[in-house]
Amino acid sequence: MPDTSQAPKTFPAPKDQRLRDLADCIRFLSMDAVQQAKSGHPGMPMGMADIAAVLFSEFLKFDAGDPHWFDRDRFVISNGHGSMLLYSLLYLTGYKDMTIDEIKRFRQIDSRTAGHPEYRHATGIETTTGPLGQGIANSVGLALGERIMNASFGDNLVNHHTYVFLGDGCLMEGISHEAISLAGHLKLGKLIAFWDDNSISIDGATSLAESDDHPARFRAANWHVQQIDGHDTDAIRAAIIEAQKVTDRPSMIACKTIIGFGFPTRAGTQKAHSDAPGEDEIAGARKILGWTSPPFEIPQTLLSDWRKIGAKGESARMAWAIRLQTASPEKRDDFQRRMKGELPSGWRAAIAAAKQELLGSEKDLATRQASGIVLNHLFDAIPELLGGSADLTPSNNTKAKNQVEIKPGEYGGSYIHYGVREHGMAAAMNGLALHGGLVPYGGTFLTFSDYCRPAIRLATIMEVRSIFVMTHDSIGLGEDGPTHQPIEHLSALRAIPRLAVYRPGDPIETAECWEAIMDTPRQAALIALSRQPMPLLRRDPTDENRSARGAYVLQEAEGGERQLTILASGSELHLAVEARSVLQNEGIRTAVISMPCRLLFEKQDAAYKRSVLGETRARVAVEAAVQDSWDRYLGVDGVFVGMHEFGASGKIDDVYNKFDITTDAVIRAGREATGKQS
Amino acid sequence: MPDTSQAPKTFPAPKDQRLRDLADCIRFLSMDAVQQAKSGHPGMPMGMADIAAVLFSEFLKFDAGDPHWFDRDRFVISNGHGSMLLYSLLYLTGYKDMTIDEIKRFRQIDSRTAGHPEYRHATGIETTTGPLGQGIANSVGLALGERIMNASFGDNLVNHHTYVFLGDGCLMEGISHEAISLAGHLKLGKLIAFWDDNSISIDGATSLAESDDHPARFRAANWHVQQIDGHDTDAIRAAIIEAQKVTDRPSMIACKTIIGFGFPTRAGTQKAHSDAPGEDEIAGARKILGWTSPPFEIPQTLLSDWRKIGAKGESARMAWAIRLQTASPEKRDDFQRRMKGELPSGWRAAIAAAKQELLGSEKDLATRQASGIVLNHLFDAIPELLGGSADLTPSNNTKAKNQVEIKPGEYGGSYIHYGVREHGMAAAMNGLALHGGLVPYGGTFLTFSDYCRPAIRLATIMEVRSIFVMTHDSIGLGEDGPTHQPIEHLSALRAIPRLAVYRPGDPIETAECWEAIMDTPRQAALIALSRQPMPLLRRDPTDENRSARGAYVLQEAEGGERQLTILASGSELHLAVEARSVLQNEGIRTAVISMPCRLLFEKQDAAYKRSVLGETRARVAVEAAVQDSWDRYLGVDGVFVGMHEFGASGKIDDVYNKFDITTDAVIRAGREATGKQS
Repeated sequence: MPDTSQAPKTFPAPKDQRLRDLADCIRFLSMDAVQQAKSGHPGMPMGMADIAAVLFSEFLKFDAGDPHWFDRDRFVISNGHGSMLLYSLLYLTGYKDMTIDEIKRFRQIDSRTAGHPEYRHATGIETTTGPLGQGIANSVGLALGERIMNASFGDNLVNHHTYVFLGDGCLMEGISHEAISLAGHLKLGKLIAFWDDNSISIDGATSLAESDDHPARFRAANWHVQQIDGHDTDAIRAAIIEAQKVTDRPSMIACKTIIGFGFPTRAGTQKAHSDAPGEDEIAGARKILGWTSPPFEIPQTLLSDWRKIGAKGESARMAWAIRLQTASPEKRDDFQRRMKGELPSGWRAAIAAAKQELLGSEKDLATRQASGIVLNHLFDAIPELLGGSADLTPSNNTKAKNQVEIKPGEYGGSYIHYGVREHGMAAAMNGLALHGGLVPYGGTFLTFSDYCRPAIRLATIMEVRSIFVMTHDSIGLGEDGPTHQPIEHLSALRAIPRLAVYRPGDPIETAECWEAIMDTPRQAALIALSRQPMPLLRRDPTDENRSARGAYVLQEAEGGERQLTILASGSELHLAVEARSVLQNEGIRTAVISMPCRLLFEKQDAAYKRSVLGETRARVAVEAAVQDSWDRYLGVDGVFVGMHEFGASGKIDDVYNKFDITTDAVIRAGREATGKQS
Repeated sequence: MPDTSQAPKTFPAPKDQRLRDLADCIRFLSMDAVQQAKSGHPGMPMGMADIAAVLFSEFLKFDAGDPHWFDRDRFVISNGHGSMLLYSLLYLTGYKDMTIDEIKRFRQIDSRTAGHPEYRHATGIETTTGPLGQGIANSVGLALGERIMNASFGDNLVNHHTYVFLGDGCLMEGISHEAISLAGHLKLGKLIAFWDDNSISIDGATSLAESDDHPARFRAANWHVQQIDGHDTDAIRAAIIEAQKVTDRPSMIACKTIIGFGFPTRAGTQKAHSDAPGEDEIAGARKILGWTSPPFEIPQTLLSDWRKIGAKGESARMAWAIRLQTASPEKRDDFQRRMKGELPSGWRAAIAAAKQELLGSEKDLATRQASGIVLNHLFDAIPELLGGSADLTPSNNTKAKNQVEIKPGEYGGSYIHYGVREHGMAAAMNGLALHGGLVPYGGTFLTFSDYCRPAIRLATIMEVRSIFVMTHDSIGLGEDGPTHQPIEHLSALRAIPRLAVYRPGDPIETAECWEAIMDTPRQAALIALSRQPMPLLRRDPTDENRSARGAYVLQEAEGGERQLTILASGSELHLAVEARSVLQNEGIRTAVISMPCRLLFEKQDAAYKRSVLGETRARVAVEAAVQDSWDRYLGVDGVFVGMHEFGASGKIDDVYNKFDITTDAVIRAGREATGKQS
């Protein structure tokens, strides 16, 4: 790569020496940690250190002694490779779990200081970032969550900012468009973004790949925009004050910075972006910045200053705690319950009521319709349930009867029109879940899970309950054809560790899956629902949630020992039931296993699993999708009825027939599988 | 949904009755087809018919009699749900395979007229669209391909426009940002987009979800922008003329339209967007637009006019053919070869030379490094090989020694800095492959396959050779941690029907995989490559491409009948080899199977498969990823060594040890698997 930027020979003198010193603490911790790890990204922390110093010392509302204080400002680094900036700040301000030893163990196995910030690894990490653009989209959710909670509980209890740092890479990613467009539309005035405008990316100068006028772009999305020198602490301060004054638009502050600020030769070049700088470069930076402490040592006066910054929010937090204690008991209890992520006591009765309504339906229901009915009941019982759809509300059945829409500047509702922005929606949902107090779900077609897969993955890594409602979950979508028919998606989603993928096989299972979702606060979930109606198969629901075991015997073999096990999910479950009745008549003793959630089944003990799967190796699996996620149950002898190709456009029955996913195909497969064993 | 827009009581009178009549042909064919199918989207074709009539009758360079004419203008509908607009145009202009019967069979099984336009279903469909935003990103590739081919072959042979229709949904999708940003940066002056600015999406008015100033947004991305009334044919004409004059910027024409133009009550509302309009609505439209023909019948004079439009390009095409015939023999042969998608004769020798270089390496190579060496040789032999990376060039090893960069306005090179735009890159690659004459490949980290999965899927559906080079393909990526370590990605990608996912296990296999990729012009491919070095395992390569069979016996069991089969891929292959030697010493007769491509193995005949997998059910599979795509070979008795969780940040060896993916683990698994069988 040619080096298209020239390293600056000199760096601007500080406007305020104390702030520069505070910033240099971040710079040297970052340099030292990357150098010791021989791995990492020093460029961003060194470039954005001045901004962080001003923001943390003069604006950010937080208390390092109580990292979970609900009304703290949220601080996110969307350019997550600059993790050392965050870790440095957490250490300097005195977060108890971020010790200097952790800083020294940067990027080492089982440290708190992973290569990119990992939510739950340390307090003060508000979200997992690294895949570019996710952090800004999370921040939209955090800022929206703040407004929604504020609408319910008032300024006294919820009134904070969301600050986000982002880089050139974040702004190149498509998700940034979805995020800033949604934030501008919703007038999220308490969201303030700092763009690290350093003109450098991995391949070299950003001018190799882009010519965008980002300030104009943000203005076009209804943001307030300022452009400043990101090393001028006076300008940073003034810009933050101005941004806070603007309450009807989110704010973007474009900060012209020098990547690797302080490096004698690498500053301003892509070499500063990543990798250990080497001892010479660090020695040069020490000289340039006048830093005399040994590696990993912060001069006591500066550390003391930083610790004061970390503690200065204590009084505000205590005042807030008093306001909470003096709120009306009802409000306080509700707020405390929601902070803890507990559901109101009535929610399980809502599931029971939904089942009753579903049992009473006179016609077959699609599981998306059943889900809509469950949501009607659930929302009435759980006010923090926050719905939405990526412009498929009438198709996804995601809007509960009593849900009111959230509108720009009006946050009292519970339903979000996310627009055709699957990725932005999913990442904003993660932010809403991270904020606390809310249980977000959002809908699109299952095939478009591909559009938001990076955010689904992050929900799963972070163990937050973002609930993805994905309808039109097979070729049963019909006429829209191959581009809209999910084929590989169920297997591809089930392959994600920890993600609970539900695919209920009838209305009652739909209610049970929703119950299981609501029962697991640290579990990201995706529920796949049919477009087409299917028969009611569970006419005798008990209070036991059978779907919560992942799989169960829907119909045991009759007349003796089981000879054949048919596994099925979703809209193909009734094919298995119909096939079983023919096979039983033929003398093949057949059980039907419903498997609405592979993940939960895999968590069961061996005895339960054996009781479900049976002793016979004669097994059939049926699902209108590829077989990959069923292979482990099929073994070498099993027979699969499903998709081996992309779908086709046509009427539902024609499509099912074309691909031979029918009761008859299951019967033939059953005969074949039992034949292999005899 | 409340109906937030009011249907217009009247429609603007035509500026030109003939053009209105031509447009009405599209409108009524679309209405009739959707009504007959009881499914589909009439709103877009009716809203954009006037634009299409002007574009096709006065500007578009094409010859319906020779749909594959290389220098035709490309026409794409990114809002692919409006497929009836395209099908109508193809029928009206006389594409032979688009009969009125096909129009009548709209959305029926096995028709050419699928719900969304499907490439290869009918001539004149330039790309498969439907998932929103893909078409505009494909168009960027088509327009870039035109400029690159123009740089090689001159105005005489390659000089055409790319026109694309797009909707509000396309503009909300993040991929649109990546696409327009890239197009503006690269100054693609022959790309002209028409935005169907109808203010309606499925949930209702677009104002429910967005407030963007799209013209300003396009200007910020360096586009030329015009805003017109999309039903004013004079304005449409003038805007196209103006857009064609602008050669240093792509053009966007914002066309204010009425969705469902002609419907008496649904026009201008979301009810016009999709679903059969009903007989009353169609009767009303007939009255309003003065249309008296029966359904599916076009008045003879209008059909004749349209057929003339379809034939008017013939003379230009013939003049072009003469220019091609009179070009220098060398140039002509090269051009014809590239049009046919054939590779130059020397390419296979380049693979052989690469293997020699790889065998001569004195140190272990990462497969990404081996791939870089192969590309050096391949590019020198195949000038149409067009490289690129999503801002990870130094990590992906995608830039061949002699590749020159493509720059804004300078298209003579062969390497593209796509920026941090994985999704836009992949979709642009699809456009480049569709254009013809070029073989695009592009790199990113394997974990970011999630960011471009929708475009990978479309490459696969379309059967075009887009080659995705994905490095850092496991936890072997090390310190960057869980967000950057692919875990489920290999299984999730292998689940996509037809996608050839390669994961070579050493440098020689890397060369073989590239050879297999170059051998299959209608095969989308993804090659997963390691960050970390691995030993050379294939020291005796013959001319036979063993990897092309998908899997093969790398080392057979010794000392008698095979007792254990170990399957492995990529950077774990050497663990299997090391484990085998210990197990053989213990008396367990063990074979090692290398499986660089499951798809190709599945295509082999049963006898070959049996010979590779062996008769014993004692099997182990090892891959630093989830097991899902291996389950079919493991059976109920197999043992998997791999990942069951997300990864961790740390040194490579520490991470492998943490997750117990080691030679020792494979040995233990081998003992366990054989123990089960005895």
